[in-house]
Amino acid sequence: MKATVTVMLKPGVLDPQGEAVRRALHSLGFEGVEGVRQGRVIELDLAAQDRAAAEESIRAMCERLLANTVIESYRIEIA
Amino acid sequence: MKATVTVMLKPGVLDPQGEAVRRALHSLGFEGVEGVRQGRVIELDLAAQDRAAAEESIRAMCERLLANTVIESYRIEIA
Repeated sequence: MKATVTVMLKPGVLDPQGEAVRRALHSLGFEGVEGVRQGRVIELDLAAQDRAAAEESIRAMCERLLANTVIESYRIEIA
Repeated sequence: MKATVTVMLKPGVLDPQGEAVRRALHSLGFEGVEGVRQGRVIELDLAAQDRAAAEESIRAMCERLLANTVIESYRIEIA
């Protein structure tokens, strides 16, 4: 089973990486870019067959390792 | 207009970051994780109103800055 976890900084948390990308895009002439936020995407290949169990397991992975829930939010998509 | 760019290493390209995550998950007891690939997600806030023009512009950003197309592939989603 394939799953995708997207981890983004929560709104309001400063994103220096995204800001650096925005500036770099401006300096390349892409003036129409008003904001950039950068996050991580983690694709998981799971042995589990049960969808509900997989989602619960992925949620535990996010809470324990994949995301820093103080400053980051995560979204789980199961294919 | 909001757009999301997802940048992943191409299949076959070694992903040491993903492999480190896989090992860390195993050591936390998540034995069912067979493979992990890690990539970047970039959320763009664009002034453009025209969808086709925005997509073309984002494609140029990917080719010039956001992705290293030798080893990475990218996917564009416009909200």
